[in-house]
Amino acid sequence: MKEIKQISIVGTGNVAHHIGKALVKNNFQIDGIWGRSKINAQKLAKDLDTISFDGLSQIPMSTDLIIICVSDSAIKEIVESISNDKAIAYTSGSIPLNDLPKREKIGVFYPLQTFTKTREISFDTIPFLIESENEQFAESLKQCANKLSKTVRFTSSEERFQIHIAAVMVNNFTNHLYHLADVHMKNHQLPFDILKPLIFETAEKIKDISPLDAQTGPAKRNDLNVIESHLNELNKETKEIYQTLSKSIIKYNS
Amino acid sequence: MKEIKQISIVGTGNVAHHIGKALVKNNFQIDGIWGRSKINAQKLAKDLDTISFDGLSQIPMSTDLIIICVSDSAIKEIVESISNDKAIAYTSGSIPLNDLPKREKIGVFYPLQTFTKTREISFDTIPFLIESENEQFAESLKQCANKLSKTVRFTSSEERFQIHIAAVMVNNFTNHLYHLADVHMKNHQLPFDILKPLIFETAEKIKDISPLDAQTGPAKRNDLNVIESHLNELNKETKEIYQTLSKSIIKYNS
Repeated sequence: MKEIKQISIVGTGNVAHHIGKALVKNNFQIDGIWGRSKINAQKLAKDLDTISFDGLSQIPMSTDLIIICVSDSAIKEIVESISNDKAIAYTSGSIPLNDLPKREKIGVFYPLQTFTKTREISFDTIPFLIESENEQFAESLKQCANKLSKTVRFTSSEERFQIHIAAVMVNNFTNHLYHLADVHMKNHQLPFDILKPLIFETAEKIKDISPLDAQTGPAKRNDLNVIESHLNELNKETKEIYQTLSKSIIKYNS
Repeated sequence: MKEIKQISIVGTGNVAHHIGKALVKNNFQIDGIWGRSKINAQKLAKDLDTISFDGLSQIPMSTDLIIICVSDSAIKEIVESISNDKAIAYTSGSIPLNDLPKREKIGVFYPLQTFTKTREISFDTIPFLIESENEQFAESLKQCANKLSKTVRFTSSEERFQIHIAAVMVNNFTNHLYHLADVHMKNHQLPFDILKPLIFETAEKIKDISPLDAQTGPAKRNDLNVIESHLNELNKETKEIYQTLSKSIIKYNS
């Protein structure tokens, strides 16, 4: 099994930025960055104290791994543009390995986390989902991920797909509920900030108890009077969300 | 304005338990506990190093404040059972002050937080919402709350009602999404635990950026192929939730 020491990065978005920083911090050598936007590539290269490539063909032979951190729709084209002798891994939660052209060393290196450029994040608790049909290469990717995080697991494309669905629920949908609450508070000239301790505790609570045991509130108590009084205050879309979620809570808690 | 030093508690649930502990920690004298269940009252009294009352009439004249921590449906009856010369406050997010019989000293002392007996919680960041038509009494309640928390605000019944709706969204609904994700993971023999770093970061992220700016995922990108592939994996109820929330995300992000 070949140890991965030198890495090139393709992509300049949130994931490229954060993985790049974590790799540098853990003493990997970043050979360079390539991005569709030359300016963004130069900017990230500067942040990571490395160079930006003018083209994918400039990635040196000495690079042990190319990590592709681009949007799902661009991955296939990028993979096809990189010569077959290079080892590559991509960071998508959705794209199955089988959707991409077969090659000796191709794999998944997926950090199960939400990234924003402006926000620092500690990598040591981020689960990395690793996949490759080449067992030796999968081991190399796992070893590499283990230098960034203590939670690394081999995960099939099918499992990764199902995990991604659950991730949409707990991240995208949860965050949207924060947004709807923000809108509701603003509509009533109330500060969203006073909800934040409740938001943090709602998340923290499940460290100790299961979400089912943590459930409280009018729907859990099947308190139809309170539910009705709340529905009367909401616009059509938010009302539909309130109704659908309340119905589901009642179903699971009765 | 009379300073509140001695407190009696009515109720033995999560809120009574946690407020009682916080009061003791902040050097209030707890005169005693009354609860419908004598056994639970004795248990909480023991935890708080105080006595349990056999009846509401036993609450001593020296008590400066009776805090009523019972379910919404029981508050009115309790208030009517306490003699008119006593100062009382209740801890509900929903019940308007006007729904209760008028008296000289009656107010709201509402901690905007989710409580579970088995989980310790720090009070200093919990927002306390205070209300009373008696301004002096409102000031006394505010001063009392300020010994437990640095965030205390006067809030009308109407504002408290609207805040409670937003709290249902960010706590009850968010927690239910955690539960649905838990069910989905179990259905696919996958560990819910690997979603926890994502859940915590989703909450923490809004310390720095607004929920609207924090939004990511297939609905935000209006990626209908991914949404469709996810919907095919879900049962009827969860599918309805996925659809309704995705539709709303698309609406707010387009």
